[in-house]
Amino acid sequence: MTQKAARHLDAQTEARIRESFASQTLMATFGASVTSISPGSCAISAPILPGARQQHGAGHAGLTFALGDTAAGYAALSLMPEGREVMTVEMKVNLLAPALGERLVASGRVVKSGKRLTVVTAEVEAVTGEEWRLVALLQGTMIPVDTV
Amino acid sequence: MTQKAARHLDAQTEARIRESFASQTLMATFGASVTSISPGSCAISAPILPGARQQHGAGHAGLTFALGDTAAGYAALSLMPEGREVMTVEMKVNLLAPALGERLVASGRVVKSGKRLTVVTAEVEAVTGEEWRLVALLQGTMIPVDTV
Amino acid sequence: MTQKAARHLDAQTEARIRESFASQTLMATFGASVTSISPGSCAISAPILPGARQQHGAGHAGLTFALGDTAAGYAALSLMPEGREVMTVEMKVNLLAPALGERLVASGRVVKSGKRLTVVTAEVEAVTGEEWRLVALLQGTMIPVDTV
Amino acid sequence: MTQKAARHLDAQTEARIRESFASQTLMATFGASVTSISPGSCAISAPILPGARQQHGAGHAGLTFALGDTAAGYAALSLMPEGREVMTVEMKVNLLAPALGERLVASGRVVKSGKRLTVVTAEVEAVTGEEWRLVALLQGTMIPVDTV
Repeated sequence: MTQKAARHLDAQTEARIRESFASQTLMATFGASVTSISPGSCAISAPILPGARQQHGAGHAGLTFALGDTAAGYAALSLMPEGREVMTVEMKVNLLAPALGERLVASGRVVKSGKRLTVVTAEVEAVTGEEWRLVALLQGTMIPVDTV
Repeated sequence: MTQKAARHLDAQTEARIRESFASQTLMATFGASVTSISPGSCAISAPILPGARQQHGAGHAGLTFALGDTAAGYAALSLMPEGREVMTVEMKVNLLAPALGERLVASGRVVKSGKRLTVVTAEVEAVTGEEWRLVALLQGTMIPVDTV
Repeated sequence: MTQKAARHLDAQTEARIRESFASQTLMATFGASVTSISPGSCAISAPILPGARQQHGAGHAGLTFALGDTAAGYAALSLMPEGREVMTVEMKVNLLAPALGERLVASGRVVKSGKRLTVVTAEVEAVTGEEWRLVALLQGTMIPVDTV
Repeated sequence: MTQKAARHLDAQTEARIRESFASQTLMATFGASVTSISPGSCAISAPILPGARQQHGAGHAGLTFALGDTAAGYAALSLMPEGREVMTVEMKVNLLAPALGERLVASGRVVKSGKRLTVVTAEVEAVTGEEWRLVALLQGTMIPVDTV
């Protein structure tokens, strides 16, 4: 179902993604980092910081969404040529379990990279020790735009 | 289309909402506050803080989503009896314009409050001076749960 | 929130919409007809035919979706210049009540008509005598394409 | 990510699904049939009948949605005890390519079957000879209800 793609991302594209990610201040606020990138995929990991919670101490849906949306966006960007970036058109999230654990890992994936739009999905898992638990599933659309 | 509802929220329900909101640390991180509540509706306002941005300095989609989702959740909660609260089952957001401005105002609204599920929508607007610009539209589902 | 728009659709655009609708065989199968069109809005009405039901005799979610999606699509098309039409990029539906009644009326509306994408919503109501009941709410994205 | 599940469905559950499917008149109108069922999965196949098309002769989005939603619903039902069935709460579809081919095959899958809600996905593929092409991706929520 995914795009056929090389296993490794070229160094230039990876540099573009890491630079873009580094300039997203929300990702810094959440303590998030890119843990893997390959063509059509991107994983982001973040702790559930004290300042990112809902009323019962679990990670806020806004945190879960932000990580999933961002992982999906960089998965889409990994297939874009230089001078192009992507913006989220729309994104839907189903929340499956409370975001509780040592950290959240969001894994974004390109389903179809078209000329005009890219369709993406993402899973967000809560990790505690060796245990991974799926907490959210996202499905959405990215649009390529010229880099400003 | 909305629920027929009294104009004013009883003091107890309003207190429950404000207390719940105050315990969402993500809302504090975003500098957000509840600006109005009535039965079936809730508005939340937040600045676009330096730490809540995407790579070009606009508000991150995660910020927009978090405000819209939270406004929709408290709109749903405003129709719940004591001892009940709500959780987001799923939420979809369409992003219409970059989140740029002095602040974002998210207005949540109950479309249907059923026994088992509540359907909600929210609009997020970017405000600059007298100008209000729609930046996102959300539609989703909340589920009532017993207060822990 | 809607686009500022003239009250009446010009005759040419209305003719284009009615011609396109007439060539959608699924709409004929469902016995559907366009009941009103204006710039940025379109309403479609259909009976709940014996051949369009789910296992308990209510209208199938596929019927409700098809009417809502089509009304939203023609709402979008009503704002397009000649030589352009629209396709659905994505659409989300929340089902609020069983589709039971004499007929369903789907009302589509443009929220934002941009150069590259149009964001739409639709409501589907079940009508029995004088009673109108909201059965579904849709939110989605249309993309303009050149007419073939 | 899927539920751990036995490979084969017990005969009683399979009979319940086939009986329910047979009473969905829309599925008969579309010439659809259940081609496989196992615990947590269901596939439905249908031709793109002359009466189920959009204005350019491709399968209507309402057809694609109906097949995907129904496959997802029966995937959910396959994990329900006797006396329970499911209804669609909400469903989102991303359309990836025109529904053109000899037939459409919708494959539904349970992501999480909870006590109160079941989260599902579905893929719809267009099949021509040996070629399978992904045309739509769905993600949604089903709710268990007592059989009437």
